[in-house]
Amino acid sequence: MVSVPPLARPERAEFYRRLDREHLTPLWEALGKLVPREPTSPCVPALWRYATLRPALLEAGRLITAEEAERRVLVLENPGLRGASSITHTLYAGLQLIMPGEIAPSHRHTQSALRFVVEGTGAYTAVDGERTTMHPGDFIVTPSWTFHDHGNPSEEPVVWLDGLDIPTVAFFDAGFAERFGDASQPVTKSEGESLARYGANLLPLEYAPPSRTTPLLAYPYRRAREALERLRHSAPLDPCHGVKMQYVNPATGGYPMPTIGAFIQLLPSGFRGKGHRSTDGTVYSVVEGSGRTRVGDRCLEWTQKAVFVVAAWRRAEHEADEDAVLFSFSDRPAQKALGLWREEVEA
Amino acid sequence: MVSVPPLARPERAEFYRRLDREHLTPLWEALGKLVPREPTSPCVPALWRYATLRPALLEAGRLITAEEAERRVLVLENPGLRGASSITHTLYAGLQLIMPGEIAPSHRHTQSALRFVVEGTGAYTAVDGERTTMHPGDFIVTPSWTFHDHGNPSEEPVVWLDGLDIPTVAFFDAGFAERFGDASQPVTKSEGESLARYGANLLPLEYAPPSRTTPLLAYPYRRAREALERLRHSAPLDPCHGVKMQYVNPATGGYPMPTIGAFIQLLPSGFRGKGHRSTDGTVYSVVEGSGRTRVGDRCLEWTQKAVFVVAAWRRAEHEADEDAVLFSFSDRPAQKALGLWREEVEA
Amino acid sequence: MVSVPPLARPERAEFYRRLDREHLTPLWEALGKLVPREPTSPCVPALWRYATLRPALLEAGRLITAEEAERRVLVLENPGLRGASSITHTLYAGLQLIMPGEIAPSHRHTQSALRFVVEGTGAYTAVDGERTTMHPGDFIVTPSWTFHDHGNPSEEPVVWLDGLDIPTVAFFDAGFAERFGDASQPVTKSEGESLARYGANLLPLEYAPPSRTTPLLAYPYRRAREALERLRHSAPLDPCHGVKMQYVNPATGGYPMPTIGAFIQLLPSGFRGKGHRSTDGTVYSVVEGSGRTRVGDRCLEWTQKAVFVVAAWRRAEHEADEDAVLFSFSDRPAQKALGLWREEVEA
Amino acid sequence: MVSVPPLARPERAEFYRRLDREHLTPLWEALGKLVPREPTSPCVPALWRYATLRPALLEAGRLITAEEAERRVLVLENPGLRGASSITHTLYAGLQLIMPGEIAPSHRHTQSALRFVVEGTGAYTAVDGERTTMHPGDFIVTPSWTFHDHGNPSEEPVVWLDGLDIPTVAFFDAGFAERFGDASQPVTKSEGESLARYGANLLPLEYAPPSRTTPLLAYPYRRAREALERLRHSAPLDPCHGVKMQYVNPATGGYPMPTIGAFIQLLPSGFRGKGHRSTDGTVYSVVEGSGRTRVGDRCLEWTQKAVFVVAAWRRAEHEADEDAVLFSFSDRPAQKALGLWREEVEA
Repeated sequence: MVSVPPLARPERAEFYRRLDREHLTPLWEALGKLVPREPTSPCVPALWRYATLRPALLEAGRLITAEEAERRVLVLENPGLRGASSITHTLYAGLQLIMPGEIAPSHRHTQSALRFVVEGTGAYTAVDGERTTMHPGDFIVTPSWTFHDHGNPSEEPVVWLDGLDIPTVAFFDAGFAERFGDASQPVTKSEGESLARYGANLLPLEYAPPSRTTPLLAYPYRRAREALERLRHSAPLDPCHGVKMQYVNPATGGYPMPTIGAFIQLLPSGFRGKGHRSTDGTVYSVVEGSGRTRVGDRCLEWTQKAVFVVAAWRRAEHEADEDAVLFSFSDRPAQKALGLWREEVEA
Repeated sequence: MVSVPPLARPERAEFYRRLDREHLTPLWEALGKLVPREPTSPCVPALWRYATLRPALLEAGRLITAEEAERRVLVLENPGLRGASSITHTLYAGLQLIMPGEIAPSHRHTQSALRFVVEGTGAYTAVDGERTTMHPGDFIVTPSWTFHDHGNPSEEPVVWLDGLDIPTVAFFDAGFAERFGDASQPVTKSEGESLARYGANLLPLEYAPPSRTTPLLAYPYRRAREALERLRHSAPLDPCHGVKMQYVNPATGGYPMPTIGAFIQLLPSGFRGKGHRSTDGTVYSVVEGSGRTRVGDRCLEWTQKAVFVVAAWRRAEHEADEDAVLFSFSDRPAQKALGLWREEVEA
Repeated sequence: MVSVPPLARPERAEFYRRLDREHLTPLWEALGKLVPREPTSPCVPALWRYATLRPALLEAGRLITAEEAERRVLVLENPGLRGASSITHTLYAGLQLIMPGEIAPSHRHTQSALRFVVEGTGAYTAVDGERTTMHPGDFIVTPSWTFHDHGNPSEEPVVWLDGLDIPTVAFFDAGFAERFGDASQPVTKSEGESLARYGANLLPLEYAPPSRTTPLLAYPYRRAREALERLRHSAPLDPCHGVKMQYVNPATGGYPMPTIGAFIQLLPSGFRGKGHRSTDGTVYSVVEGSGRTRVGDRCLEWTQKAVFVVAAWRRAEHEADEDAVLFSFSDRPAQKALGLWREEVEA
Repeated sequence: MVSVPPLARPERAEFYRRLDREHLTPLWEALGKLVPREPTSPCVPALWRYATLRPALLEAGRLITAEEAERRVLVLENPGLRGASSITHTLYAGLQLIMPGEIAPSHRHTQSALRFVVEGTGAYTAVDGERTTMHPGDFIVTPSWTFHDHGNPSEEPVVWLDGLDIPTVAFFDAGFAERFGDASQPVTKSEGESLARYGANLLPLEYAPPSRTTPLLAYPYRRAREALERLRHSAPLDPCHGVKMQYVNPATGGYPMPTIGAFIQLLPSGFRGKGHRSTDGTVYSVVEGSGRTRVGDRCLEWTQKAVFVVAAWRRAEHEADEDAVLFSFSDRPAQKALGLWREEVEA
């Protein structure tokens, strides 16, 4: 920002008014804001307790049907970005409820989506003719521009966390969407087929990935949890992250979606993590256990099924009071693809 | 959007108020806006004539020094995005003036930048200890996080178009910046060294690119113009784009920067291009000739040195009244890296 | 080949003799052989019955200890390449026996190796401090330049098929080898650790593959067999290959080694495959079932545990008399990396 | 190799005879040779003086026509590999002569080829409808499976060095070839078109490389020489290699062919290079100057237009008595793709 000698002020003001009419602005009045020394995200850390979320969801379940809503979701809005339907600058998160007997009708969109199951068993997500039954902790992907629908043939309400790149796609002016027509797409495959085809450390002969999105419809919690359990005993813990793994597109070794990375980590009881920060604001869902995450001067106390967000470039420290498992997602793949990602870890 | 039976309205409104206090919002009230059928960019097509820009720049030259301003730039703001210092949703453009004897002091930032020389010869851009003398039509890259400064030891004002990914870096909360200290970085290389080292279809033995940004400091206009001239005679013209080439990172064959692609095209006199649209809003600088670009129901009449922008997913048609050369840039590499880019070309 | 007029013959012969003394030869006398119209591999199809192999191995077990032999292996030599210790032009295969209580001492070499377990349970292969217990059908990788040793603490003889790129490494003059010193490397990891770390569709946070070789020590048969069983019911069979999958490096989606690809396929009872040929000569190990493979005018009748080889660019047809599972390996990754691989499939 | 107690010898010999009949051999008798401690290439260093080569070529020019020979080439055979038409284990080199008025008829083959012009100006190589006029020092590529022919409309004999991957393609059993029919392919492009299209640090809009081979038909010596000259003054010399650059595929930043890398280096007058060795045996053509290369205990004294070969993993030192330029090629891209390449440089 420039300090202007008093006499020049009126002349500049008049100049700026003329510039304005030509859709021009003087960079020197905005440079510091446009090119800051450090990230200055408007996002803030925040936490939503499941004790709050669940009754609100069930009330929504009374007020609107899944079909009427197309998707019955409560959007978790970052308190620093109200009105934007964003939980971080680039990502959207919501909690979706599907009641017994309901269907969330089939549509597709450019936006990539993940579903992380929070409560209930027996609903399904259908993609490309295959249905996967949802269990708590399952991580499910509905890739960009694939038709997908959800249904709940079970007896209990099922709730999951939706994570989408809606703000990113909007920012790039690249969003398209359409409805399938029928509420449900036809089922043409047996359950577990994509896991057998792509998830067994095998791929079909001469398989050429049609996109950078994972061909795996679902990553069952059972398998991820088993890996975490084995690894907690076999290697030193990461001082910041405990045992932290990233979900992988088995056809590339990369992230499951080009815009969203997903992670799962185990913090053993008593874990006191070191501080770290990175430019990717991160959304967490608590699968097991309880503890807290200190973010800057905030302390987010979490218990099972809570959702919380660590804003970009804020120093965070995790602590677990009992064995805890955290699922998380962020825009890390996008930041890396654009050469933007940075992290800092305490010595 | 959901049509709500009258009786439910007050109940919902009250529910929404309670949600709001918990930083929650109902997706079903916003779904259509968040997940649109087609891109609905707030950006609009626009054109800036050089007859307007040049006097404004020279006036800025009187009102503020290069050193005081750090960069003396008039930002070209998209009329649909006033206040955002953006020319498209994701990119920034400005016209920078450097007067004889001035220096724009050395700094570095996460933001990647291109410079496309519009008027004047003899200023320089310095990166990594090498200075490149600027000539009209030269395309110059100052990579993310490299110190760079500009100076004008010549006798004439020099003007160039700046293209940066400022909005993108802000959106991803990943911006860092710092000053070098001295106004100019020390010169440690002879001019033309990077062109000899990386631009002659050779690379140093066992060269491993340290990033995805081009190691070429400058792409001289002379060479690009020569290629266009030869190719106009040797192959059928593209029905939309005439002879259109993309600038290349010689170490990867990819775009010159991970966030910004740059292009140069020749439209022969009398060219009437077919309609096309793509999701990357594109900024054009007119190097030679005159003509017009129809964008939706707008007609942008351009002459030499004008700058214009075609907003995302708007149908555009180029016409040339005389041989014309257009430089352009967009966020195409970012959109492709994120799996978002689409185009549509008329049959 | 050139037809030479009779009078020129002596003159040419004399010229050729002079050339020869200068280490020169006339291309025109050899062009047809050097640059053939189609591949003319010296390799031929061949089959080794386990009824022959097993007694020979056990006899070797009496005549030489594992430690004395370093590796007690009977090399399967292609009848068209006797003396070269090659089963195809580029690959080596042998059957290795390890008797109860024996150790095959630790060494490492540039050559990449796979082990496919044929008979017996309870021997182990150790790599990077981890031991994997061998079961019939397991596919195990000992990467280039990693120390590895084998041991058999069980009560039964254990036999596996070794597949190595020995001829390839020799051809490229790039072979290095050394002994570990001690017979066994220290065990520093628990069994199954690499499978948990790399094989669960997860990778360690920020994992960067140190090479193109799979980080998975073993691909258990149980998991591969399960996938084949599921897929046989869920998609049309490949007309040549039945249900055929390739083993994958989970960190890249590519082949498990840069020089050797590995495959597993199920041919349902009664399967009559169409003819196909490819430039990668392929070695098969019969895991389950019986049938035959017609290769050119040969018919290779196979039963469980047999090994056979289909030479490059020979038309092959598989037939199964009962449900059959075939493991196979070839140099396909190398041929693809070098731009050489071709295949032809019957319409 | 195993030391066998005397009593066991006859029994083993008899066992080996039985094995032999089954196409089996005992690994333990061959292990040391198959898996050596260090590369033991049969290739040896060698040099061919142009004073020897030129008269032999002209004599060949009298004894056989280009059309009769299809290619009138004297193959440079490594003295350690006589009969194999190989200059290294994996590569072929020959000197080709084309007399005024002659045509070397159009054909194509899987084998990739480079041409490095040694003497004469005015012959051409045609690929994909474009002819490039040959000048001394030009590096020309005829990619795998593209029709190519050569002609000499000039008044002087023209000689070039051919470098092909013939042994590699034979080793992988992947060679195909066919004739075009007519002697010359039709000319459909103007000279210099591929250089304008791919060699100006630009690529056609949305260019997708159809293979890993360079789209550049020719790399003119003028441009490479100019780059070397500039770089000799602007950076410290490599202690082993002087100023050494690699030719690049501008569409990928990689080597010009997947099987052959090509290099050009300047050794300033008086240069005394340090020792180095690598697993890729390398063929050199002396473009300018004179000096020597010590390889193991051999000393190869070279002058202009000589060809010499440094065998794999032999320590080499270059010395220049006057400014010298060396072109070279090797199988480095193949070795890297297969994870096999190693080098060692003296401290």
